[in-house]
Amino acid sequence: MPSTVSALVTEGAEKPLERSTIERRDPKPHDVVIDIAYAGICHSDIHQARDEWGGSEFPMVPGHEIAGTVSAVGPDVSRYSVGDRVGVGCFVDSCRECENCRAGEEQFCTKGMVATYNGREYSGEQTFGGYSTQVVVDENYVLGIPEGIALDEAAPLLCAGITLYTPLTHWGAGPGKKVAIVGMGGLGHMGVKIAHALGAEVTVLSQTLSKEDDGKRLGADHYYATSDESTFKQLASSFDLIVNTVSADLDIQKYLGLLRVDGSMVNVGAPINPASVHAFTLITGRRSLAGSAIGGIRDTQKMLDFCAEHHIGAEIETITADDVNKAYDRVVDSDVRYRFVIDTASFQVR
Amino acid sequence: MPSTVSALVTEGAEKPLERSTIERRDPKPHDVVIDIAYAGICHSDIHQARDEWGGSEFPMVPGHEIAGTVSAVGPDVSRYSVGDRVGVGCFVDSCRECENCRAGEEQFCTKGMVATYNGREYSGEQTFGGYSTQVVVDENYVLGIPEGIALDEAAPLLCAGITLYTPLTHWGAGPGKKVAIVGMGGLGHMGVKIAHALGAEVTVLSQTLSKEDDGKRLGADHYYATSDESTFKQLASSFDLIVNTVSADLDIQKYLGLLRVDGSMVNVGAPINPASVHAFTLITGRRSLAGSAIGGIRDTQKMLDFCAEHHIGAEIETITADDVNKAYDRVVDSDVRYRFVIDTASFQVR
Repeated sequence: MPSTVSALVTEGAEKPLERSTIERRDPKPHDVVIDIAYAGICHSDIHQARDEWGGSEFPMVPGHEIAGTVSAVGPDVSRYSVGDRVGVGCFVDSCRECENCRAGEEQFCTKGMVATYNGREYSGEQTFGGYSTQVVVDENYVLGIPEGIALDEAAPLLCAGITLYTPLTHWGAGPGKKVAIVGMGGLGHMGVKIAHALGAEVTVLSQTLSKEDDGKRLGADHYYATSDESTFKQLASSFDLIVNTVSADLDIQKYLGLLRVDGSMVNVGAPINPASVHAFTLITGRRSLAGSAIGGIRDTQKMLDFCAEHHIGAEIETITADDVNKAYDRVVDSDVRYRFVIDTASFQVR
Repeated sequence: MPSTVSALVTEGAEKPLERSTIERRDPKPHDVVIDIAYAGICHSDIHQARDEWGGSEFPMVPGHEIAGTVSAVGPDVSRYSVGDRVGVGCFVDSCRECENCRAGEEQFCTKGMVATYNGREYSGEQTFGGYSTQVVVDENYVLGIPEGIALDEAAPLLCAGITLYTPLTHWGAGPGKKVAIVGMGGLGHMGVKIAHALGAEVTVLSQTLSKEDDGKRLGADHYYATSDESTFKQLASSFDLIVNTVSADLDIQKYLGLLRVDGSMVNVGAPINPASVHAFTLITGRRSLAGSAIGGIRDTQKMLDFCAEHHIGAEIETITADDVNKAYDRVVDSDVRYRFVIDTASFQVR
């Protein structure tokens, strides 16, 4: 019999998140039942809860930065046991057969991966996310959270962490490489920590210098304001890799000019408007403009293991269910240092 | 004493190329004197002779696809001897000290490489190109043309060949890789030959199917018309690498959709207008849009050696000095299969 669990539910784009209940399925043979301890608030939760991308399905329970503990397992589960510290990220299933799934890049599943919320299982059931006290997920889409990271600081790694870890490792951030992180928010601050731990020389490019102290404390070697035009002259042709975490429209051309020969600029946010790119800027330095989306299960596990080894968690502000709607507005205003995490102990319907 | 040599000279953007003479410097200790046999006509010759990019200096002798024979050497030359078959490409010097020169990527010299024509030596002297009977070049900027390639078919390799060889090798074209070449002209036909010789599965994407027979003869496995919208549906997410040789404005977004996960589209032509690129298209397949320009001296030599080993030369139409102005118009009309090569035996002032 399905279980009824507490959750924060929104009934429509204009509606607030409110305490309610949802049903979770009985565990199937390969399912893991997870008691959720913390769920991070990702900016994309807000876009979807407010239907800003279109196509949102309500009722909705957002949340794809999930950390908790295994409370039950299906009979055929071999990867996890009751009591294990685990996490769930942006997807809970994929076709497992296409070339991308076989390559461990399930996020690019050609059939379409099953989103952790605001999605549909292949069976047709609606998916509900991490703003709840329990979730049931196939063991192959569950990640182990090593002892070295507290569960609250681990939750945001499941989306923000892997979103930065993938481009940084895929494009070779490491000793001798100069890496710039554009934007010092929920994504950007993870980029600073991970790039620094990988051994790269890290520069933050932020609109202002207001978060310079934080940036340097988290691992940045340099910090520049992009509102200062001299930044673009001073840093011309100097970076091997720029990871752009800003979803607002930027003058991409200006940033491409900061890349040295063979440098890449990788977008992990997706502005609504297209960027204007002169081929000439790319050609004259064999530069690339690329994009990257989260990561596959294998790489997400690698990221968690790497973060544990380097004692990296997210910088968080822990909130209760009562604070979530206000927290959404604060995220939109960039008024969070650097990720909200909801403590699910506050979810019970009172 | 400088020598007077025959050349094709234009006195201004609106003027034709005419038989005349220019001076070539006495060989310095490391200089090689080359009796030019053939010079290819590159589309960029036309842009510069007609001052379409601005900043052209007249009088001008175009030509940076040069093949000939060493006729004299300076006292300290060690790399070449009289009688050697040699070539010169797009540049004849660079600073030799910057990080790009030291990395063998002289085309990206931060001081600015010295263009073979329409440029200035660091000493201030104007440079004159390959539409002439002799050129004097520092041995470090001279390439050896192996016996396996005829000089006339080798000339276009010095620009068109290296322009395609670099992106194909840099982005890993080879067995098991699907490569598309956009455009079947002077650059594109070299891309087909080289990509095929590298072992890739090669597809030509051309406006029409008019050159399909040629494309397949030169090594293409598939040939599609981009004027047919179904091409973009049929080939969605299928290429590891797309090399775009077209300098006209294309809908880059449509082509990016043809890349599989981790695929790259590399521009080797530079349209005047910027391309419009949605970050979403890049993010959803970890795709890249890049650019590439010719290649360094080391890679240009590798390319010539590779082409000799695989019996690859350009497909050429050999012309005399009398035909050059008409040939320019035909290049603009894409009416050449696939590269004009000027026989310098026709250059004497009559």
